[in-house]
Amino acid sequence: MTPAENKRLKTVSKSRLLQELQKSVPGKILLDSNEAMRPFECDGLSVYRKLPLLVALPEDTNQVRDILRTCSRLGVPVVTRGAGTGLSGGALPIESGLLLVLTRLNRILAIDPLNRTARLQPGVRNLAISEATAMHGLYYAPDPSSQIACSIGGNVAENSGGVHCLKYGLTVHNVLEVRLLTIEGEELILGGESLDSPGFDLLAVVNGSEGMLGVITEVVVRLLPIPETAQVVLAGFDSVGRAAATVGAIIGAGIIPAGLEMMDRMSVEAVEAFISPGYPREAEAVLLCELDGGKAEVAEQMEAVMAILNDQGATSVSVSANEAERLRLWQGRKNAFPAVGRIRPDYYCMDGTIPRRELPRVLADISAASQRCGLPVANVFHAGDGNLHPLILYDANREGELDQAERLGAEILRMCIEAGGTVTGEHGVGMEKIDSMCEQFTSAELDQFHALKKAFDPPGLLNPGKAVPTLHRCAELGAMHVHGGRLPFPELPRF
Amino acid sequence: MTPAENKRLKTVSKSRLLQELQKSVPGKILLDSNEAMRPFECDGLSVYRKLPLLVALPEDTNQVRDILRTCSRLGVPVVTRGAGTGLSGGALPIESGLLLVLTRLNRILAIDPLNRTARLQPGVRNLAISEATAMHGLYYAPDPSSQIACSIGGNVAENSGGVHCLKYGLTVHNVLEVRLLTIEGEELILGGESLDSPGFDLLAVVNGSEGMLGVITEVVVRLLPIPETAQVVLAGFDSVGRAAATVGAIIGAGIIPAGLEMMDRMSVEAVEAFISPGYPREAEAVLLCELDGGKAEVAEQMEAVMAILNDQGATSVSVSANEAERLRLWQGRKNAFPAVGRIRPDYYCMDGTIPRRELPRVLADISAASQRCGLPVANVFHAGDGNLHPLILYDANREGELDQAERLGAEILRMCIEAGGTVTGEHGVGMEKIDSMCEQFTSAELDQFHALKKAFDPPGLLNPGKAVPTLHRCAELGAMHVHGGRLPFPELPRF
Repeated sequence: MTPAENKRLKTVSKSRLLQELQKSVPGKILLDSNEAMRPFECDGLSVYRKLPLLVALPEDTNQVRDILRTCSRLGVPVVTRGAGTGLSGGALPIESGLLLVLTRLNRILAIDPLNRTARLQPGVRNLAISEATAMHGLYYAPDPSSQIACSIGGNVAENSGGVHCLKYGLTVHNVLEVRLLTIEGEELILGGESLDSPGFDLLAVVNGSEGMLGVITEVVVRLLPIPETAQVVLAGFDSVGRAAATVGAIIGAGIIPAGLEMMDRMSVEAVEAFISPGYPREAEAVLLCELDGGKAEVAEQMEAVMAILNDQGATSVSVSANEAERLRLWQGRKNAFPAVGRIRPDYYCMDGTIPRRELPRVLADISAASQRCGLPVANVFHAGDGNLHPLILYDANREGELDQAERLGAEILRMCIEAGGTVTGEHGVGMEKIDSMCEQFTSAELDQFHALKKAFDPPGLLNPGKAVPTLHRCAELGAMHVHGGRLPFPELPRF
Repeated sequence: MTPAENKRLKTVSKSRLLQELQKSVPGKILLDSNEAMRPFECDGLSVYRKLPLLVALPEDTNQVRDILRTCSRLGVPVVTRGAGTGLSGGALPIESGLLLVLTRLNRILAIDPLNRTARLQPGVRNLAISEATAMHGLYYAPDPSSQIACSIGGNVAENSGGVHCLKYGLTVHNVLEVRLLTIEGEELILGGESLDSPGFDLLAVVNGSEGMLGVITEVVVRLLPIPETAQVVLAGFDSVGRAAATVGAIIGAGIIPAGLEMMDRMSVEAVEAFISPGYPREAEAVLLCELDGGKAEVAEQMEAVMAILNDQGATSVSVSANEAERLRLWQGRKNAFPAVGRIRPDYYCMDGTIPRRELPRVLADISAASQRCGLPVANVFHAGDGNLHPLILYDANREGELDQAERLGAEILRMCIEAGGTVTGEHGVGMEKIDSMCEQFTSAELDQFHALKKAFDPPGLLNPGKAVPTLHRCAELGAMHVHGGRLPFPELPRF
């Protein structure tokens, strides 16, 4: 929030809030000392840090409801947090508000193997779903890199992706039902276990809403059968453009790989220096393409992919012959971020999405911008989705390099918008990209977001200042055209 | 609308509206005589008929914008209509309003074979998309039965399904971008050609919003490669329960057929008497299961399906050996509705959805209810989705039978809700099911729908009286629990 926005929030003292909350929930679930609250001062985007007024760690849904009712009565803002692995600062506390941490709501309530669904509390870890359902031959497909730690409630709030989302969809495509508490503590059941649901699709709105519409208390996810087999091919290319064009050729041929990842020369060199997974060091770019399904299906698709790689002039090709080789080929990709982190002391991981056909051009533009500004950029990303993760390398101890890195990041996001893409693929907007939203959307569109927010949270108490910028903020940045100095939405909701 | 709701709308005379519209759009696109407007008095649910004040047939987006601006300024309600094939009365005109017909906006604006997308005006017919893209080996997957006539704008408004939606998803899963004009004529671009989009998922909200949020002026759809091969198997069973259990077993085994349809004995007898497609007359139920994809993949999955059919005790099994046989096996299903229509003069086609695991029980309950009320019910439906289409047979000329059919229909929808399902699978709510919505949703949930509607259309001028009942309406029906006589939403928006 800007200071002006912050001022508009009522201020309730810590002791008053504590006293009021203790009327309905046990004191042991509330943390009020700075020491106890310190672990919650940031999420995965640790450049932003703030202590909230109080932290609450409820143990059941009734406590969540009681906390929301109290905060809503007192006008205290509420920021909801899951495992705190988010990369855009969506769970950054606000000083005058309560941080509602849902990690203790971590029970798997039901698994229905025949219907292939699981009913979960929001704090259940992403990987724990697949672990619990493996005995039925089932798994939960969306797999963000943080899957060992991140929780399903946070996945819904951020509409998380992962390597597998190219074939199996984002979180929104794998969630059937969400139970949501409004800021007033009213329960809404959105979606359900049957295919379609009448009325407006509020379930989809909640996916990716970054804690601004309500508090998720239960999630029903779709489970998929574990594929019979999976095989990966690693291909080297003598140019980034050729690798990018090959991505289009594979998808254009009607093959949807389980994963289709790309790494450029800098990333390949970094992983070879780090763990030597045997990637082709002479290549300008490599593609990793995984196929999964029945044995015959995988064999048939692998044949088609090999023909395309050949047509597109791949300079080297290796196919995994067994599960151990498959895992080895993935090692380089999985260790790419820490490997790149060894080149310079710091890196800034960007996240933007573009239409696949624009990959060759935008990658060339990023490379040119990197040369102009003097900071190297490594590219390791979900190529099949057009979801870029340029890593801008810098040294925070060198005067001005952090600023330079942030300016280059903003420029890359602008390229994504201009190519018909978006300023985030899977990391959300949170605090980090709120200003880029002014460039992505027109005032009419931002207006519509505000109206929707207001329809769920009229007092604007849920996660204020995140995800959707006020029109004033955009106007101050000069990023949005304002007719005759008049903002189209005179009475601003205060988030 | 109830008469009370209707009264709340301002009344503008036909001549005034005509005069005001002619200031910005050519007179030739406006119809005002009862004769000229007669073809537009109903959609596919022809039991409801009404003439609007005026009909407008705009030829481009600018005219749509000018019409909306005029109506919004005068406070005239607007009902948008595509091809008029809807089955729930969503495009029923209202007497004091304008009917906005978008059939002339029927241009395919762009086809991008590499990115596999098509940009369409809203009046483009569903089948025309696949016809235009076939030369690139691509097609548009969602295939409502009306696909020869229905338009993509209407498909988005109703979130249409079809036989293929089990494998390829509903309309919402195949639409990448929608351009929408608000009632004030402001353009919103929702979604885009890249994978995810920041901000709230307004694109999903518009899918299935039944013309209540805005007017669709452009749609970008995802295209799929035409499958290399498709094969269908027809299996007979000695009980409906066994056929229903087989549906669960196929899906539970991780096979997602391109179509998985079920017909009961009454339907089978009707089609055999009508066109003799060679279905097993002794069976209590038949399943049609279509597999598509690469040759090896289809062969592998067919083997698995045959094993399941055997395990589940299918009494007869035939597999299509070529494309001609595949089409012949589908003949019975495709002609089932007209065939059943020969048993009694009238039928009422219901549309409800239940979780697949509930199929055996709910089908038995429908059969028991049919016997209690004395009206036969034939079942022909998308079994894989749990999307039921019970056809209630009656004779409108027999005193009381229409009423009885409607009561039985409402009872069937109640069964769907109680089984954890919904009151509509793919036909929408429109006029037809507005009262069933009071049973499906709590007042908090309906409240949320109203708040969302108001966020898009503050004056409530778009398709008033459809899709979402007012809380007053529900309270009058006694279907919703109202605390202490006080409605939770004192100031009702007027739709």
